[in-house]
Amino acid sequence: MQVQPRRVMNNQIHPTSVISPRAELGGNVTVGPFSIIHAGVEIGANSEIGSHCEIGLPSKLADNDRLSIGEHSLIRSHCVFYIGSTFGEKLVTGHHVTVRENTQAGCCLQLGTRGDIQGHCQIGDYLKTHSHVHIGQKSKIGSYVWMFPDVLLTNDPNPPSELLLGPIVGNFAVLAAKSTLLPGVNIGIGSVVGAQSLVGVDVPDGMLASGSPAKIVGPASILRMRDNPGVKVYPWNKRFHNGYPEQVVNEWK
Amino acid sequence: MQVQPRRVMNNQIHPTSVISPRAELGGNVTVGPFSIIHAGVEIGANSEIGSHCEIGLPSKLADNDRLSIGEHSLIRSHCVFYIGSTFGEKLVTGHHVTVRENTQAGCCLQLGTRGDIQGHCQIGDYLKTHSHVHIGQKSKIGSYVWMFPDVLLTNDPNPPSELLLGPIVGNFAVLAAKSTLLPGVNIGIGSVVGAQSLVGVDVPDGMLASGSPAKIVGPASILRMRDNPGVKVYPWNKRFHNGYPEQVVNEWK
Amino acid sequence: MQVQPRRVMNNQIHPTSVISPRAELGGNVTVGPFSIIHAGVEIGANSEIGSHCEIGLPSKLADNDRLSIGEHSLIRSHCVFYIGSTFGEKLVTGHHVTVRENTQAGCCLQLGTRGDIQGHCQIGDYLKTHSHVHIGQKSKIGSYVWMFPDVLLTNDPNPPSELLLGPIVGNFAVLAAKSTLLPGVNIGIGSVVGAQSLVGVDVPDGMLASGSPAKIVGPASILRMRDNPGVKVYPWNKRFHNGYPEQVVNEWK
Repeated sequence: MQVQPRRVMNNQIHPTSVISPRAELGGNVTVGPFSIIHAGVEIGANSEIGSHCEIGLPSKLADNDRLSIGEHSLIRSHCVFYIGSTFGEKLVTGHHVTVRENTQAGCCLQLGTRGDIQGHCQIGDYLKTHSHVHIGQKSKIGSYVWMFPDVLLTNDPNPPSELLLGPIVGNFAVLAAKSTLLPGVNIGIGSVVGAQSLVGVDVPDGMLASGSPAKIVGPASILRMRDNPGVKVYPWNKRFHNGYPEQVVNEWK
Repeated sequence: MQVQPRRVMNNQIHPTSVISPRAELGGNVTVGPFSIIHAGVEIGANSEIGSHCEIGLPSKLADNDRLSIGEHSLIRSHCVFYIGSTFGEKLVTGHHVTVRENTQAGCCLQLGTRGDIQGHCQIGDYLKTHSHVHIGQKSKIGSYVWMFPDVLLTNDPNPPSELLLGPIVGNFAVLAAKSTLLPGVNIGIGSVVGAQSLVGVDVPDGMLASGSPAKIVGPASILRMRDNPGVKVYPWNKRFHNGYPEQVVNEWK
Repeated sequence: MQVQPRRVMNNQIHPTSVISPRAELGGNVTVGPFSIIHAGVEIGANSEIGSHCEIGLPSKLADNDRLSIGEHSLIRSHCVFYIGSTFGEKLVTGHHVTVRENTQAGCCLQLGTRGDIQGHCQIGDYLKTHSHVHIGQKSKIGSYVWMFPDVLLTNDPNPPSELLLGPIVGNFAVLAAKSTLLPGVNIGIGSVVGAQSLVGVDVPDGMLASGSPAKIVGPASILRMRDNPGVKVYPWNKRFHNGYPEQVVNEWK
């Protein structure tokens, strides 16, 4: 891919920011004070980079010298993104997020404040993580997944070792607050992991795992809404559509 | 409240900082290098803002366009405060703290490094949190409360949902390290939650809860000082007065 | 120790950085944009300070007014180091790390992203911590120790109190992800703590502790490699030498 000179099509680049002439900024991109954008970064139109960010940090570990961030994205202050990753449109982050090299993510990724993506991982569309979620290297995460605060995905089964077995998380899975996935576990489609669970076993599709160590409790569909016991909590996508476009919701039916 | 032009009554504003003419800084306020203060921010006299902060970030979710920080406050480096909150005097934070909109806090709040206040919550006087405490939206916290490292207050009983049931934490309560409060639990006055406990039940006043899931173990007064078994650990305010003014301690008696 | 004027022997100091004339930078030191280096800081030759850092923050709690960082060190962006500590050569940090005053560390310390060293602690050589490890005050940590993500070392046995009993961690010990050491526990040489364990008992040399609360499970040598059951995981230094110089590995034999 040919590196183009920086195109700045508006005046929303703060004068204190440091932007490489070899970064490409689409139309209507905003860059806040004291932010740095390195060579090889491509930021899609109508995106916003907050203050105090460093975007496109060079790295010898990167598979390539590009960082692509899709249109209509919002990266909040104090974030650090390494070179070598690709994000679809509508990426939204909280503050103080770190993303290492070689991360491939689909559209509409939401990374909560202090998210820590260790890189070398694959992420589908519409992953939503709350604060301080740590995704270890070699993780593979599907689409429409939720991860609540302090969730941790580990990867080394023989610590310390060079063997990295990232967890696999299926579409529509929900990992509740402070839950931990041990190396290489497979969380099925639509599965649910309870708060503070330590998951060392595979969780079949649609099942609920809970405890430390986690056991399979039963189908996730046994859980009822706290405020409406007549309604099942899971599969959540049957009842919760906020933040998803109509087209996506229609595909779920 | 009328927005006044910025009043700078000394020369302690670092020349690299970016300060809105519609921010109000009291006398003897210090602002460190590379910090940003937005319009609508009011910082009381004799306060200090460290480096690399962003104070008063605009937000459509804020109930108002003001952020009020009381006198004699200290906000350390790399913190982010959104617009729409109010803090009493003597706010002290660690580094990398984030505070979202619509937080109402009394005096003498101490937020440890990497504290994450999600906003839309009420906090009394003299809450002291250690590092990396996460307070979810809709939490209600009393006065003289302690939260130790990695404490997490969650709020969604049907994840994901729009129902937010913040925990309620009574005066003098103590939440030990890595403890988690599940949505809507009520922690009584002077209650104690043990380390790494997962609390899904209400804890009556003065009781000790511990475990994952947490159970009520008994009165907190059963615990004795490690270094002096003749002295009860709780109620802690009978033996520990450091950091509280004499007037407050006298009220406790 | 006499404070020398700043010596800058190359042109790698970013013009936006703020560097005290009373900081000492060795030859070939790089300082990134928007970083601050205070008086009393000594950075060894061939070191790199990333962007948005604050190095050598003054503090009344510091035992002295110096911060010494050895040669060939790398401090990544958004880190905060207080004055009053000493680090040997080849210190490497992730991003957003905070290190308080009065920390004494040997060579080759690796602190992962969001590490939180509370100060007043002693650290040997080659400690390697992954993301978000919190080391409380008064901790004493040996050499060749590993700490995985979200490990927490606490220190107050009577929270809140003024008594600080830091844990003691022996050489070659391994603390797996999300494990917590309670105040004053002694983790033996070559001991292993399982993921999410809550350790309130001493762990003898070479033993494995696991669970919440943690119990002694047996010798750590019972664990076999996931990818090669014929090989014992521990002692890990018999099979894993990556990142250690030949001289060190030879000493292990």
